[in-house]
Amino acid sequence: MGHAAIVGIGHSRFGRAPDKQLHELAWQAIRQALQDAGVTQRDIQFLVVGNAGGWSSELLPAVVVGEYAGLTPVGSMRVEAACASGSAALRAAATAVESGKADIALAVGVEKMTESTTMQIVEMIGRAGSFFWEFEHFGLTFPGYYAMYATAYMHEYRAKEEDLAAVAVKNHYYASLNPYAHFQKQITIEDVMKSRYVAWPLKLYDCSPQTDGAAAVVVASEEMAKKLTDTPIWIRAQGVATGTANLSKRDNFLSLEPAVLAAEQAYKQVGIERSQSYKYFDVAEVHDCFTIAEIIAYEDLGFVERGQGYALAREGETYKGGRIPVNLDGGLKAKGHPIAATGVSMAVELTKQLRQQNPESRQADIKKGLAVAHNIGGTGHYAYVTIFSLNKDVRFT
Amino acid sequence: MGHAAIVGIGHSRFGRAPDKQLHELAWQAIRQALQDAGVTQRDIQFLVVGNAGGWSSELLPAVVVGEYAGLTPVGSMRVEAACASGSAALRAAATAVESGKADIALAVGVEKMTESTTMQIVEMIGRAGSFFWEFEHFGLTFPGYYAMYATAYMHEYRAKEEDLAAVAVKNHYYASLNPYAHFQKQITIEDVMKSRYVAWPLKLYDCSPQTDGAAAVVVASEEMAKKLTDTPIWIRAQGVATGTANLSKRDNFLSLEPAVLAAEQAYKQVGIERSQSYKYFDVAEVHDCFTIAEIIAYEDLGFVERGQGYALAREGETYKGGRIPVNLDGGLKAKGHPIAATGVSMAVELTKQLRQQNPESRQADIKKGLAVAHNIGGTGHYAYVTIFSLNKDVRFT
Repeated sequence: MGHAAIVGIGHSRFGRAPDKQLHELAWQAIRQALQDAGVTQRDIQFLVVGNAGGWSSELLPAVVVGEYAGLTPVGSMRVEAACASGSAALRAAATAVESGKADIALAVGVEKMTESTTMQIVEMIGRAGSFFWEFEHFGLTFPGYYAMYATAYMHEYRAKEEDLAAVAVKNHYYASLNPYAHFQKQITIEDVMKSRYVAWPLKLYDCSPQTDGAAAVVVASEEMAKKLTDTPIWIRAQGVATGTANLSKRDNFLSLEPAVLAAEQAYKQVGIERSQSYKYFDVAEVHDCFTIAEIIAYEDLGFVERGQGYALAREGETYKGGRIPVNLDGGLKAKGHPIAATGVSMAVELTKQLRQQNPESRQADIKKGLAVAHNIGGTGHYAYVTIFSLNKDVRFT
Repeated sequence: MGHAAIVGIGHSRFGRAPDKQLHELAWQAIRQALQDAGVTQRDIQFLVVGNAGGWSSELLPAVVVGEYAGLTPVGSMRVEAACASGSAALRAAATAVESGKADIALAVGVEKMTESTTMQIVEMIGRAGSFFWEFEHFGLTFPGYYAMYATAYMHEYRAKEEDLAAVAVKNHYYASLNPYAHFQKQITIEDVMKSRYVAWPLKLYDCSPQTDGAAAVVVASEEMAKKLTDTPIWIRAQGVATGTANLSKRDNFLSLEPAVLAAEQAYKQVGIERSQSYKYFDVAEVHDCFTIAEIIAYEDLGFVERGQGYALAREGETYKGGRIPVNLDGGLKAKGHPIAATGVSMAVELTKQLRQQNPESRQADIKKGLAVAHNIGGTGHYAYVTIFSLNKDVRFT
């Protein structure tokens, strides 16, 4: 099996983009990624487009993106894994390279959500469970799914709404330092607590917004990566697992089991001990579609013991300089969450972190050369955990 | 790079399945494929679901299929490449194996089209070009796209409507021998000629139907394949290319350029000379969404010179025993075309052909141990050409 590295990154501004179509958003990210890699469209041998779709009119986004980006006749496919579609696209591009089918591949994640109304989006994302059973019969929406997790978590561990709010405050703070983020303003615990309930105990400021945006990465083989850059960022390991479509079949609502499984798979490939995992990473990106999701992610990734995730948030240990810095780009919560762009955006951010290209205010100290991305689809329906490294062969025993 | 082989196949009956949901159709195929491979759900390490969707209510089909098939928590993703989604799923499963990420992967293609009305399907498939430009502004539907190719072809080469009809007659003949096919009746040239025009010169009997169905294959690494079966069918080579989203940007309407490119890529990997390609294969599956598409496929694959494809059809040279037998399962035209199931169905059929498991009436003579599948998405928006072999290392120089 060959190795694959990120050698170029691109990112559109996240936010509402009523003046741009899906392929225009994608091109913003692709153009940057090609330039950053020092390659042209002719060098790309495979294109993977992550797009969940449904809210925009383009039913077959990959060919439209490909043509607009000048990539035709490069072979392509679209991949979808709900909100983890971006990580699935990264995986498909990486395996194309690792299998020897391509020397250079391009993964792009793009979503034009605001083409639909909020109610349409609520309806569509609500189907991210089992449409025929839980959505159709019980009418649960997506905030409702995560509210069940928040309720169970708060009951079990005596966490407070203010603890959830601390995640939103941190992520808005870092978004205010990130010009690509949807939200540019800092908020306070009080702001969160005063915001209206969406699904108790989750309030408006506990929720990620509806966002348009795109992110892209150029992925290259070992031989090609070494020609193109002095600092390839290796896609060192990836774990992937799924949860039941029906939430009623879950054992508990304190953990997303597939995230634990995906992390274990990835950690095993690098020799990382889960109970001490925070010691291995300089920085992490986790899937904070709701504030409770970030807290549970801390625990599912082994950054802290079960029931202690909210304390990590409360004590500021996931800010820069803390035990493990998380979402220094603002996270889904405040950078925005254009569904399929998110996983690729995580890869872009961690590449910048490992390259030490961020402004100091939101640049992690890079001492270990290792970073982890945790990308969830639905309510733990999909989990992709990806480890990025400066050292191709890094392995602990 | 490792090798990947098909070690298990499954196929639902194609047709209208008002009593079955998407995941039930998928399970019919998956269950057979697991049994045929002699494995259980626990052996599957990665699941790829090909599904174009849009016409059925399940927006996130892969997790629902995974749960229903007892595959949770196996990691998964959905892939889409329009009508070539099945070949894209096969590719994603094969690269997972070839890259060393999985020892055994499962690719399933499934579509529940008849949940929507014909007009809804016409509207959605019409978007298989560029929605914002050609579909929205000119109102072209999918038969209209291919009618432009048929018109250009007939004008350039003096082919007749009866020549197109010959393809439909052949494919209905073989469908009548295939219990999994949507249509079970033979038809005559006169039947085709008397059927009503959909988009001149294409008549109803020139068109593939709206079909529900699923197909599945178990893909294994070399080591695992040799443990599981005496006759692994190797996924020897695959080419993939794309065409412009907008048909107005095409150079001509006599050929699907990406099919030529994809074939060249695949042929190069095996050392096949394009101008003599029919000599290398025992049997082929080609994408006959409309009769004209099969004729152009003969030429794009190099089975015959440009402008001679219709003669091949007229002279019966693509029946069993002819120059190159094509679509001995009935093809899209008569077996049916449940969009994402089609590419996987082609892999299932060619596996059966190479294993010599078909009834004699539609079993090709297997002398060379090589077969080719040509799967198109949209109107040449995607092209996937896959070569299957009995000999893992077969290569011509």
